[in-house]
Amino acid sequence: MKFSFEVTHKVKTSAARRGKFLTPHGVIETPAFMPVGTLATVKGVMPSTLNEIGTQILLSNTYHLYLRPGEDIVAKAGGLHKFMHWAKPILTDSGGFQVFSLGELRKITHDGVYFSSHIDGSKHFFSPEKVMDIENALGADIIMAFDECSNYGCDHDYAFQAMKRTLNWLDRCAVHHKNENQMLFPIIQGNMFKDLRIQSVKETVPYAKCGIAVGGLSVGEPKELMLEMLDELVPYYPENMPRYLMGVGTPDYIIEGVRRGIDMFDCVLPTRVARNGTAMTSQGKVVVRNAIYKEDFSPLDPECDCYTCRNFSKAYLRHLVNCNEILAATLLSIHNIKFLLDLTKNLRNAISEGTFDVFVEEFYKKYYGFKV
Amino acid sequence: MKFSFEVTHKVKTSAARRGKFLTPHGVIETPAFMPVGTLATVKGVMPSTLNEIGTQILLSNTYHLYLRPGEDIVAKAGGLHKFMHWAKPILTDSGGFQVFSLGELRKITHDGVYFSSHIDGSKHFFSPEKVMDIENALGADIIMAFDECSNYGCDHDYAFQAMKRTLNWLDRCAVHHKNENQMLFPIIQGNMFKDLRIQSVKETVPYAKCGIAVGGLSVGEPKELMLEMLDELVPYYPENMPRYLMGVGTPDYIIEGVRRGIDMFDCVLPTRVARNGTAMTSQGKVVVRNAIYKEDFSPLDPECDCYTCRNFSKAYLRHLVNCNEILAATLLSIHNIKFLLDLTKNLRNAISEGTFDVFVEEFYKKYYGFKV
Repeated sequence: MKFSFEVTHKVKTSAARRGKFLTPHGVIETPAFMPVGTLATVKGVMPSTLNEIGTQILLSNTYHLYLRPGEDIVAKAGGLHKFMHWAKPILTDSGGFQVFSLGELRKITHDGVYFSSHIDGSKHFFSPEKVMDIENALGADIIMAFDECSNYGCDHDYAFQAMKRTLNWLDRCAVHHKNENQMLFPIIQGNMFKDLRIQSVKETVPYAKCGIAVGGLSVGEPKELMLEMLDELVPYYPENMPRYLMGVGTPDYIIEGVRRGIDMFDCVLPTRVARNGTAMTSQGKVVVRNAIYKEDFSPLDPECDCYTCRNFSKAYLRHLVNCNEILAATLLSIHNIKFLLDLTKNLRNAISEGTFDVFVEEFYKKYYGFKV
Repeated sequence: MKFSFEVTHKVKTSAARRGKFLTPHGVIETPAFMPVGTLATVKGVMPSTLNEIGTQILLSNTYHLYLRPGEDIVAKAGGLHKFMHWAKPILTDSGGFQVFSLGELRKITHDGVYFSSHIDGSKHFFSPEKVMDIENALGADIIMAFDECSNYGCDHDYAFQAMKRTLNWLDRCAVHHKNENQMLFPIIQGNMFKDLRIQSVKETVPYAKCGIAVGGLSVGEPKELMLEMLDELVPYYPENMPRYLMGVGTPDYIIEGVRRGIDMFDCVLPTRVARNGTAMTSQGKVVVRNAIYKEDFSPLDPECDCYTCRNFSKAYLRHLVNCNEILAATLLSIHNIKFLLDLTKNLRNAISEGTFDVFVEEFYKKYYGFKV
């Protein structure tokens, strides 16, 4: 077996757990945060740096790589690992979320989705089989099933149709996918309806071999609603496989996900806010652009030992942000990614040391200025 | 003495020489190429990476740092070395070239130059004394005198006035500059007129303590004319101090400068062309954007051992360039800077090993496809 997952520690007061996920490109300790390298690059950060700061696994996007450079080029390069020079595990999404986000530019049918490229308007079609072919060509360790992520706010009937279609497509993905070096993760949908979420998880679990994902959350709904959905799912997850909450990356959502038994997370947030001049620190958010940092020669985060915090001041970073210097995006991205990697590392340690609840309480107080 | 220069090897067939330039922040082996960090950052490259690829000294721009973040901020940070986290030598230019490039936005008087900021149009005034104050506050090891770089194409009379003004300003810089941790480099001007160049070098040399610069070349004139000007100057340089040819960075100009006794060079070229998707390689220029590299999985430069060439293919770099990914600028800048650093290192070795002419001939054949 090229994939296996073992829960090594559990928390008594919640569903939080620590584990080890073995993949063909190495072990992932969970809970894990996955930085996003949309176009086979984490924006502004060299792979060697990602490795140094403790990145265990990267996520890359099927929709984007299909359009540019094309999965055939990546396959000829020897797969995504070689192409982007990343020797550790990679996960590719299915393009589902991206094509559904295209709005007017796409049309959903039973067979699949017709869509127009956001780059040049060219016409394309994604079916479950086509997506499997693309993900097989890209060659990530973990590949996501093609799903429909219905809009937040749609009615029960539409959410049901989309959930059923996702199950049908999952079946087609499972039939079509043959590469045993790649683990297919099915995706639970059901929008914000408890009955649909429960039906979805029940019908999805049989397809989960070593990993299952929760999609369609953190898409604009109130936080409480997302947590309710996660709460519903807890009793239904298989124990001995990783659970991945898609697109989630704020510290509180990660913590609340872990508390509800989630093992893996991804989000563009750390690099996106970095390019906007914002840092996530142990003292909360720091908007580096602000004039109060003009003569602040202290590091971004006094508790961080990343390259940025060891060597540069807020005043310098503010100067770089103000001048639109590339190095601003690079240095802030390094820090922000490491911040979330460190958060998940600290969560892992707190779980195995039996201090999870204390750690979470302290973190909330420091980061958000409030108690859990 | 905090500064000293020693010529360690000479070439018999030309004025080329190898030397060691001692500064408060370390030794610079010459001939040396200085990457440009305009705003206290070499665009897209981390200082740690610049160090790894063998950068000996960085150049930064007084005009730009005066406007953003302001020399007072840099001084409060403990100087430019601390501010930008660069422990090796730094050279700051005088802002002369930048303010004269402002065209309609500046007015030259005997006292100095009135100019409007290219950022917000605010009014400013640079005098030799003011520039010395700014450069003292920035705290580079080597500081350039405030000079007037007259336009290529101006007449003999104007070039003479500008040259005389440069000498007057040089005298004022020398009187005003007091910090013995910073070496003031005077600048030879005289436009493209041999008599003015000779008068300028003769009257400039008395101000040169441990370093002299040649300004106002490579500003649009034909290469032959620039080389003629450099030829004229050779007999007049003091032997035991470094000579710096300002703003020069193409391989052939560096080589022809070295042949004419130049020890130091700087240019934005390697990073600027990198951001445009072009690489300088041992096989000549590579325009990475070109479609012929779509499926070229070989490295940018088979003879280069930089991070970029060791780990990434032309196909991957082309993909990054096509997608306007930040990493394209970073990876190409790393390679291009190392290319010029390696060129000067190879020139140093060729000089000390007595193979300078052979090396140059081989280089021209490979890089440009022609003999010297």
